Amino acid sequence: MTSGSEPADADVSFDDYARTRRAAVEAALDRLLPAPPACPPLIAEAMRYTVFSGGKRLRPLLTLAAADSVAPCGTADDRDVLPTACAIELIHTYSLVHDDLPAMDDDTLRRGRPTAHVVYGEGIAILAGDALLTEAFRILALHSESDAPDLRNRRLRTLSRIATAAGAEGMVGGQAIDVAATGTTSATFDAAGLRAMHERKTGALIRAAAAAGAYMGGSSDAEADAVDRYAAHLGLAFQIVDDILDVEGEQERIGKTAGKDAEAGKPTYPALFGLAESRRLAARSVADAKGALKAAGLGGRLSEIANWVLGRTR
Amino acid sequence: MTSGSEPADADVSFDDYARTRRAAVEAALDRLLPAPPACPPLIAEAMRYTVFSGGKRLRPLLTLAAADSVAPCGTADDRDVLPTACAIELIHTYSLVHDDLPAMDDDTLRRGRPTAHVVYGEGIAILAGDALLTEAFRILALHSESDAPDLRNRRLRTLSRIATAAGAEGMVGGQAIDVAATGTTSATFDAAGLRAMHERKTGALIRAAAAAGAYMGGSSDAEADAVDRYAAHLGLAFQIVDDILDVEGEQERIGKTAGKDAEAGKPTYPALFGLAESRRLAARSVADAKGALKAAGLGGRLSEIANWVLGRTR
Repeated sequence: MTSGSEPADADVSFDDYARTRRAAVEAALDRLLPAPPACPPLIAEAMRYTVFSGGKRLRPLLTLAAADSVAPCGTADDRDVLPTACAIELIHTYSLVHDDLPAMDDDTLRRGRPTAHVVYGEGIAILAGDALLTEAFRILALHSESDAPDLRNRRLRTLSRIATAAGAEGMVGGQAIDVAATGTTSATFDAAGLRAMHERKTGALIRAAAAAGAYMGGSSDAEADAVDRYAAHLGLAFQIVDDILDVEGEQERIGKTAGKDAEAGKPTYPALFGLAESRRLAARSVADAKGALKAAGLGGRLSEIANWVLGRTR
Repeated sequence: MTSGSEPADADVSFDDYARTRRAAVEAALDRLLPAPPACPPLIAEAMRYTVFSGGKRLRPLLTLAAADSVAPCGTADDRDVLPTACAIELIHTYSLVHDDLPAMDDDTLRRGRPTAHVVYGEGIAILAGDALLTEAFRILALHSESDAPDLRNRRLRTLSRIATAAGAEGMVGGQAIDVAATGTTSATFDAAGLRAMHERKTGALIRAAAAAGAYMGGSSDAEADAVDRYAAHLGLAFQIVDDILDVEGEQERIGKTAGKDAEAGKPTYPALFGLAESRRLAARSVADAKGALKAAGLGGRLSEIANWVLGRTR
């Protein structure tokens, strides 16, 4: 059921591919996360609480699909790529835990469950986020003395790229812009400002997830560039769809407080462009994403992920 | 004044050695920290605020001294070791920013200045801490395509060790134990429990700082083990002295709210053992630290750092 070659088989439907790859990610996360007695029980539990709360696993799926798309035999070596995919998901999870805090977005519900600080208190939630971020880099540095020199080089390149995407120049910088702007009117952002904020806040890590997969899958520089361009368009589409779902979604379906962005006076694509034009923008971004792949002779699962991002309902 | 060979010269006093090495750390931190326009100005400023607030730089000094102590020529290559030392200091700084938050130790004063969340608000302070931690790993992953395979291996080993020390099994785990215990009576910890908590909370990163220096300086495994044992004793001495200073120190001199630990019902060495016995314990730990070095034919600046830790008044 989870044999190494199955997911790359073109006869396997995208749903089955995604299901198999997600199961591999869940199992690897469970194996890689710290546990007692090495780790104090409370922090281990708080870390797992948000990691295993039914996330879509978009980012690790991107990493795996990017690696598969460039691997010579059509399937990358999971020993190298799965830890990278998990590290990306831990960074994404830490960002959710911290963004939900009262001092940030002040969300009490995520994926239909109370947020981490509601369950464990703010102090432990902050620490659980810190630990998830740190753990991600520990996992990225996992290596064997017998690794080929080239593999060590790819690990360091991957680590460097992910850290840049997650840090002050990327995700954290975007969240800082968002936090500083919240409470002010949406006039703070025009279309270019909104896009620049999201390129950091959600776009940078999505791009790094795909690029990391390409690096670890052994891509050429041209392939890595194409995957990176694909993911830049995909990240934009993802964010627009997210904003649309926030407006449209019933609270039950998306599992977080719907309409919350509008209520907080946060700038969104629907607020700036309206729903119909936002949908057109998302579709065009997905087309651009697939175009970037095609130009480099890539496609496959990455193209299917782009379709899925456009069609998602949560 | 800052020529590469000077600091290793045995004729240079420890004060001069420490001053020269600290100046190198300050300059490297300034060069390595993100800045506008790549980084949004507010988060760049908030990161620098606590980094440049007059810290003792004990940990980066340990990294540099450990590297110098094992380097064949008596001075390690700063190109490899200085970034490692800076990364350790950024991790230490992030932990201060987060520990000072209202949901944790709720400190409004550090090193005589308002803490980061007082100046920038809680949201930006949390993000500045996140960014400092992420930046540390970006710096540790800095590499050149022309690096020797052995150097890449040492980088990954260093990164792995530091991440383990900083994460749920180390520093964050220790802080989680502390946060969970605060408010309960000091009877929660006996001597073994207090020591185990501090081995994680402050000890793990101090050990990693020294071990990372040894790795990056090109140590043998036996030398790295000796430096690690030294730093384990040193970390204990550091914590005991910290507790003593908290009881004794005037608020002006240590720059944080004195007697705060006792007030918060936090367990401390003086509370468990009294001041006189705490001083004896600290002195014995420093002797043990120097003994561990001597057994491996090491000493020099690392021994002098141990003396300094015992005699410090802030």
